[in-house]
Amino acid sequence: MTQNVLILPGDGIGPEIVTEAVKVLETAKQKFNLNIELDNALVGGAAYDEFGTPLPEVTMQKAEKADAILLGAVGGPKWDELDDRELRPEKGLLGLRSGLELFGNLRPAILYPQLADASSLKPEVVSGLDILIVRELTGGIYFGQPRGIRELENGERQGYNTYVYSESEIRRIAKVAFESAQKRGKKLCSVDKANVLEVTVLWREIMNEVAKDYPDVELSHMYVDNAAMQLVRAPKQFDVMVTGNMFGDILSDAAAMLTGSIGMLPSASLDKNNKGMYEPCHGSAPDIAGQGIANPLATILSAAMMLRYSLNESAAADAIEQAVSNVLDQGLRTADIYSDGMKKVSTAEMGEAVVAAL
Amino acid sequence: MTQNVLILPGDGIGPEIVTEAVKVLETAKQKFNLNIELDNALVGGAAYDEFGTPLPEVTMQKAEKADAILLGAVGGPKWDELDDRELRPEKGLLGLRSGLELFGNLRPAILYPQLADASSLKPEVVSGLDILIVRELTGGIYFGQPRGIRELENGERQGYNTYVYSESEIRRIAKVAFESAQKRGKKLCSVDKANVLEVTVLWREIMNEVAKDYPDVELSHMYVDNAAMQLVRAPKQFDVMVTGNMFGDILSDAAAMLTGSIGMLPSASLDKNNKGMYEPCHGSAPDIAGQGIANPLATILSAAMMLRYSLNESAAADAIEQAVSNVLDQGLRTADIYSDGMKKVSTAEMGEAVVAAL
Ligand SMILES: CC(C)[C@H](C(=O)O)[C@@H](O)C(=O)O
Ligand SMILES: CC(C)[C@H](C(=O)O)[C@@H](O)C(=O)O
Repeated sequence: MTQNVLILPGDGIGPEIVTEAVKVLETAKQKFNLNIELDNALVGGAAYDEFGTPLPEVTMQKAEKADAILLGAVGGPKWDELDDRELRPEKGLLGLRSGLELFGNLRPAILYPQLADASSLKPEVVSGLDILIVRELTGGIYFGQPRGIRELENGERQGYNTYVYSESEIRRIAKVAFESAQKRGKKLCSVDKANVLEVTVLWREIMNEVAKDYPDVELSHMYVDNAAMQLVRAPKQFDVMVTGNMFGDILSDAAAMLTGSIGMLPSASLDKNNKGMYEPCHGSAPDIAGQGIANPLATILSAAMMLRYSLNESAAADAIEQAVSNVLDQGLRTADIYSDGMKKVSTAEMGEAVVAAL
Repeated sequence: MTQNVLILPGDGIGPEIVTEAVKVLETAKQKFNLNIELDNALVGGAAYDEFGTPLPEVTMQKAEKADAILLGAVGGPKWDELDDRELRPEKGLLGLRSGLELFGNLRPAILYPQLADASSLKPEVVSGLDILIVRELTGGIYFGQPRGIRELENGERQGYNTYVYSESEIRRIAKVAFESAQKRGKKLCSVDKANVLEVTVLWREIMNEVAKDYPDVELSHMYVDNAAMQLVRAPKQFDVMVTGNMFGDILSDAAAMLTGSIGMLPSASLDKNNKGMYEPCHGSAPDIAGQGIANPLATILSAAMMLRYSLNESAAADAIEQAVSNVLDQGLRTADIYSDGMKKVSTAEMGEAVVAAL
């Protein structure tokens, strides 16, 4: 049966990096005889420019029908000034996550040995780093109601948002996290602020409850302020971390940056049937868009994750990951990961090198 | 006129490190003829053990009367299991902050040149690091109502907290931040999540408004996920950062850890008249309490900050800071900052060395 993949280039460097990932996917399709069909749609600022909304109905319909989605990135200064906040590019992304119930966000932070120098941390602190952050993606303060800006009786305005999680929301992300830990180092650290926030008291309680079904996984708890410190101090103490939407946003970016090469890191956002949306951890980098210098590897590796998690094509996924490792071994580097003695290449050259290695 | 200083040793290593800071204060009092009077009270777990509450009325009364407060740290596993969350040590600390309206939390992250090796970051990334984080301390999601855990109609429980700021709360912390920036590098970075959270849309708007009164300060805005990344990637790009209570909790700990010597970092929490509570950035470290090995320097430097900001005794403050620098030059190190070739000393030996240097 044909599997449908929806390609959403998005904004900024999105189209450039997605172009390279599509080349790689097409090559893998030939080589491994994959029965996949690629389609395209607009999201984010690009969709706003064309349709006046960051998440047009046609995009949502295609996304619902697809077996997996590959996204570039959304957002840019061009749309930051839109008065109606519902029209901003980010709303397209948030609408996809929530509309498709992609609650399980997997963000690996891996240090590629070939890029060890890129980290701002000392080599002994980060060498061999391999953390997986599991972030809840469709709940928490990102989507909590009520929210807004209201006028108080004394005439001044007040902004408010609601940080909220129900037992079932916590339980389903807990399962994703425990199952991920089972497949790895069997250590799970749940991050909360249970000494201050009631919502995370419930979070901790449910984590402890779900832990009983996974006796082979060692569960620990850490306050979010301490987790931010420990990521800087000694990140290798972690195997899998699980946390809510907001803390996950912050900690996964910090963790990604520990590697010094965020241009290398893919991510997956999965629903309960492992249908997923795949995207690089980095943003749309409007400052370098259109220059052909962006690093396409995070998007290419996102395509590999997609083949593995949503399309059950792990041989093709392995081959793409191996091809990426090979081009790094060949010394090819885009500007963001360039260091002395290496060969600087463009976005397209990097993509073609991966195709060749494949 | 006599100025009253309230000493709150707290829990864990709190009493040990405060003892040394008091020795230093007594010495400064003699040397500089300070007209200060020290008093003591219990807070946190220690207060719970004695009075059944983490913030006894007598402590609150003394705190209200005092011109400044020096706190060790609160909390420990002994009290983590208390079923009534209102009785936990942290509530004592939060009650003091809120009851005394100590909304302006100043957390410097400074790399001491003598301790450059302690950082997990590469020397070129952190050498000369000197950031000030201004954290709003009496509002935001820490204190927002409604909050709690409720039962939903379908029978499952839901935890919820409210992230809320009014214009006036934002304006007063903005002023503290702009004034701090004016006295330093004149660069202020306000951290929010205005692409997702309405409360921080208002935050950003008020920051821009207050900026007009400080034309000599350059204001920028950054999303919190990016700020966490930038602190890891290139922390020296920052001068002063300002943010809300929750983001400030996370970012200030990450920033402190960049120095590798959180045992060295003081903090101040000020009300609108610069009355303040001073405490080390680190916690109560129950695992090493009672062993006489904790680093008292963050508390001693907190006492110096207290003399400068709340008691207007900057000569004494300068002298204490100089004395701390001198003992570091002498090679004295507590275990947390020890490195080869240095002289390892106990908590008391470190305190006495500072007294001697003074
Ligand atoms: C673009 C933004 C809304 C988004 C988020 O905050 O989730 C991004 O930072 C991310 O982490 O994917
Ligand atoms: C102990 C805890 C309640 C406190 C906080 O979260 O504010 C601490 O982490 C701090 O930063 O002072």
